[in-house]
Amino acid sequence: MRLRDDRAAHLLRVLTVAPGHTVRVGVLDGAIGTGVVTHVSDDEVTLRCAFADPAPPPAGVDLLLALPRPKVMRRLWAQLAAIGVGRIILTNAERVERNYFDTHVITPACYEPLLVEGLQQARDTRLPRVSIHRRFKPLIEDELDELAGQGNRLVAHPGAERTVAAAAEGGHARVTLAVGPEGGWNDYELALLEQHGFVAVGMGARTLRTDTACISLLALVHTALTRSG
Amino acid sequence: MRLRDDRAAHLLRVLTVAPGHTVRVGVLDGAIGTGVVTHVSDDEVTLRCAFADPAPPPAGVDLLLALPRPKVMRRLWAQLAAIGVGRIILTNAERVERNYFDTHVITPACYEPLLVEGLQQARDTRLPRVSIHRRFKPLIEDELDELAGQGNRLVAHPGAERTVAAAAEGGHARVTLAVGPEGGWNDYELALLEQHGFVAVGMGARTLRTDTACISLLALVHTALTRSG
Repeated sequence: MRLRDDRAAHLLRVLTVAPGHTVRVGVLDGAIGTGVVTHVSDDEVTLRCAFADPAPPPAGVDLLLALPRPKVMRRLWAQLAAIGVGRIILTNAERVERNYFDTHVITPACYEPLLVEGLQQARDTRLPRVSIHRRFKPLIEDELDELAGQGNRLVAHPGAERTVAAAAEGGHARVTLAVGPEGGWNDYELALLEQHGFVAVGMGARTLRTDTACISLLALVHTALTRSG
Repeated sequence: MRLRDDRAAHLLRVLTVAPGHTVRVGVLDGAIGTGVVTHVSDDEVTLRCAFADPAPPPAGVDLLLALPRPKVMRRLWAQLAAIGVGRIILTNAERVERNYFDTHVITPACYEPLLVEGLQQARDTRLPRVSIHRRFKPLIEDELDELAGQGNRLVAHPGAERTVAAAAEGGHARVTLAVGPEGGWNDYELALLEQHGFVAVGMGARTLRTDTACISLLALVHTALTRSG
């Protein structure tokens, strides 16, 4: 395999490879293995790859996220892929500004490289599936079952008593985690989520920025899934 | 109290206050309460403040962090203050680049406003204490007991079997969490930490960027402290 793109640049400038060196390689949504460097030049690296290990198991959690402001969303992509999510389901909500949906940050040209960067960091190959929904009600009523299936459904809600560990334990191997806008879901949205099986979970009294909240909650869900799995 | 700084700008542009409105207020390292807007102009807000509630309890966790690259450190400040840490103890390590210590990002002029931003987000008033240590060995051997006391000591280490929940439960009400450089602690550093009471804890097989790892681990520690508290 001959590389001339940013992967070649990373191998040459960061890992400073030379012929004979071994590096980790992976195929997007596929196997992982090792590559032996056979040739390098100023801007090109040739590898002989062997894929001994199957693709890592898919992440056990899907994220339903009210679209945050572009700056926060941009920071989130790589981190979500690194910590591991199956699907990233972005939705509108009352407290989401309409113009957030018009930004470059939610185009594949922007987010795919960031997701791949996160996978490389975590040595995973499973690219999260991304979908974008401008209407909350049809998403929850008609589309979510198809997208996320019937695992445990948790909605982060400041002040809720139940913990992620208590809500995620027992039963399902998959979790759908809903994280609202910075101002919170409105009463209607929360009621609709609860009607569709979401259980409110809290994380103490602190209000966190969307990216901090997502990472914290995903860490708690992953731990709960590991413990009960 | 008359405000003309970025707090006034926030009240005027984001919260769009008018006389009679009530907002949450807090004194750095002190009480929290409410302020009634008595007067507004183009760039000034006057509040009548009452501080009914004492300062929130101090965070139960201190972070010992190998200084990450400046871009990552800049992103971390507000998030650390928001999630809640008592002390942020930044240290050198073999895999920390020397020039990271020469950046603007670790000057109070840079980090104090970011910490305050995080406290405002979380409605806390306890400013994390920051100290910066260019020598790892004297920090661990001579200074850490004074800085962090004798709570549970955890060091994040990829592949360690013990979970944060298992290591943090029982006994102490305080935790010191050590998070290494992106390339990990070297064997000497890890051994020195273990000699000084740090227990290795893992978080699955994934390698996370420093900021993602810190937030994830702090969420797990806070949850463990809440459960055993």
